[in-house]
Amino acid sequence: MIYIPGGVCAPKGFRASGVHVGIKTNNPEKKDLALILADCDCTAAAVYTKNVVKAAPLLITKEHLKDGRTRAVLANSGNANACAPGGEENARRSCSAVATELGINASDIIVASTGVIGQTLPVEAIENGVGGLVSALSFDGSPDAASAIMTTDLVIKELAVETFIGGKTVRIGGIAKGSGMIHPNMGTMLAFLTTDCAISPDMISKAIIDAARVSFNRISIDGDTSTNDMLCLMASGLASNDEINSPGADYDAFVEALYSLCVGLAKKMAADGEGATHLITCRAYGAKSEEEAEMMSKSVISSTLTKAAIFGADANWGRVICAMGYSGVDFDPDNVNIAFESKSGRVEVCEKGRGLPFDEDLAKKILTEHDVTIDIGLDAGDAECTCWGCDITYDYIRINGDYRS
Amino acid sequence: MIYIPGGVCAPKGFRASGVHVGIKTNNPEKKDLALILADCDCTAAAVYTKNVVKAAPLLITKEHLKDGRTRAVLANSGNANACAPGGEENARRSCSAVATELGINASDIIVASTGVIGQTLPVEAIENGVGGLVSALSFDGSPDAASAIMTTDLVIKELAVETFIGGKTVRIGGIAKGSGMIHPNMGTMLAFLTTDCAISPDMISKAIIDAARVSFNRISIDGDTSTNDMLCLMASGLASNDEINSPGADYDAFVEALYSLCVGLAKKMAADGEGATHLITCRAYGAKSEEEAEMMSKSVISSTLTKAAIFGADANWGRVICAMGYSGVDFDPDNVNIAFESKSGRVEVCEKGRGLPFDEDLAKKILTEHDVTIDIGLDAGDAECTCWGCDITYDYIRINGDYRS
Repeated sequence: MIYIPGGVCAPKGFRASGVHVGIKTNNPEKKDLALILADCDCTAAAVYTKNVVKAAPLLITKEHLKDGRTRAVLANSGNANACAPGGEENARRSCSAVATELGINASDIIVASTGVIGQTLPVEAIENGVGGLVSALSFDGSPDAASAIMTTDLVIKELAVETFIGGKTVRIGGIAKGSGMIHPNMGTMLAFLTTDCAISPDMISKAIIDAARVSFNRISIDGDTSTNDMLCLMASGLASNDEINSPGADYDAFVEALYSLCVGLAKKMAADGEGATHLITCRAYGAKSEEEAEMMSKSVISSTLTKAAIFGADANWGRVICAMGYSGVDFDPDNVNIAFESKSGRVEVCEKGRGLPFDEDLAKKILTEHDVTIDIGLDAGDAECTCWGCDITYDYIRINGDYRS
Repeated sequence: MIYIPGGVCAPKGFRASGVHVGIKTNNPEKKDLALILADCDCTAAAVYTKNVVKAAPLLITKEHLKDGRTRAVLANSGNANACAPGGEENARRSCSAVATELGINASDIIVASTGVIGQTLPVEAIENGVGGLVSALSFDGSPDAASAIMTTDLVIKELAVETFIGGKTVRIGGIAKGSGMIHPNMGTMLAFLTTDCAISPDMISKAIIDAARVSFNRISIDGDTSTNDMLCLMASGLASNDEINSPGADYDAFVEALYSLCVGLAKKMAADGEGATHLITCRAYGAKSEEEAEMMSKSVISSTLTKAAIFGADANWGRVICAMGYSGVDFDPDNVNIAFESKSGRVEVCEKGRGLPFDEDLAKKILTEHDVTIDIGLDAGDAECTCWGCDITYDYIRINGDYRS
């Protein structure tokens, strides 16, 4: 498995575009409408936010994906179309407009939105903009599409991988947006993935759930699970491999590549969390089960106090053991080991539940790096799990103290 | 029931003191050791943090309260005595030192600590300081004791109430500390309560659990449940009422007064959350059950995005409905009503799950007040619940980016 350029356009048969149509009225320079188009009918699957309050486009997408087939993704930023008057109607009108322009069925479109909750989607802007959006479609369009789904993201997030399945070269690509309102709960983010792998609707559904569980669902930025999050994967089949329609070596190879792509995008999201200055990796090991390792690791990366300590490059491991303690996992506190690590070195700070003397200057140097790892160990078993998050900073407060303006 | 002055010394038979003995070495001016002494044997009960990692003094206190009796509370700030070498031995040595000085049994002492995790308790400083601590005991000592348990708190928290039980005047007083690492989970804070009510060990245990559930357990500052939290109540019986030893009118009157005291202290804690500039009250109504109303209300006051929006006086109700949606309660999003209220007025922002047009200037004015209420309504039943929290600010980040220094 290797990383390749091209994002969602890396797999065979996908073009993309991103333009400004006037949804982000405060930022006329910023793209706000994205399109990904497959040259042929695709199998597809998606996972959605577990939030009880679901944005209108998610409901429409669920309806459109009932047959496990799709042709295109239409996504806007600047407006969440959640809890907004006329939400479902406006999502349908958006689909119709682009379907007419493309000459495909509206029911073959995956539609998504991200932005402010509760405001009416300016659907006329979308209807007026689909002509430009469609004519901008290109095999180099992944960065434009990635840019058009950004809200408070600072960098575009795209990635692609290449692997071999049944003797054929298969590619998987993706774009994603993250930044705020990010907390692991099966599909907590906006990410659109493409592949040229031939894979059946059943197996693509299984693959996306399997991959999301161990990638996107292991990041947290602020503990807030959004109303709009969606992860979808569409497969053109143009790689000409024998269709994957059951578990086995081909499926495993596909999921392994998909996992690498998803983890890569998830880490990009965590690193670009609103206001973040650190990517925090927390590796829990020596746990009784992977589930318990995940609970502890997630608790640490979600702890506001731990996040603030890492922002301050303060080796305050008391915040870490405290977060382990309220994670819901039952463990013996006298078996806890904790270390901080980065490219500047490693410092062990807690052994068997008790503080160790350590070099504060070295610890400060380690935690001043952008990528910081917190190792938390028990002595209860062989299971481990890694989760990713970011620090909480003055900028997070600034951004979210006045998000709507 | 009326509020009266005097804090923990308001009930008959209690003296208190607070002195500096050198635990807070960075702040020689700040008191760091508190003592509350009853003139006679008391019934007593406590609730403790649910964190798996428990500080040593909690373990010792549990042991000392097995017989439901106590005489004194000894509490230090500046060091949590959690995950620290020699923790239990140092907690025992602290008890022995003060017991010898007072001429009582060490097992009749409730001991507690708050401060940095993982550092050895400077027990010699305590042993050397108990003489001064005991000689400072006074019937006016509640503010000194309240001051000596503060960490990043900005204001002392004490309160007392007076009521009539069985024809006798009964008083309940308390001191508390909060500020950071505060999240509702049965005893999430440090609070020491006294009363002159005559009440049996069984009923005092029941009373403290009943009162904590609907007061302290309904506040959140940062979602971090501490390793050191404890709420205890000691009863001298000097009010000469007939001992409360079963449920009934007397018990109800006692719990009602205790509830008022606990809610008052809990709101003081929330308002003085680390870096806070707003006290946020979230009232959920129209829910199927009190439990579900509490889940939604807690989810809103715990939402980092909602807290940041209130800091910015931004009427971003999308954050609120989003937090309701991931609270774990199943509800119909089309039945949600949301309003913001303060002494500057009230603005309805969401009706039946859809945004309402509202006066942004008025909303800004309402949210600029210190005390802000968020009303969240469903149309699912008659149950309601109120929880309290605070905003997240630049100062929270500053304080916790460098807590140990």
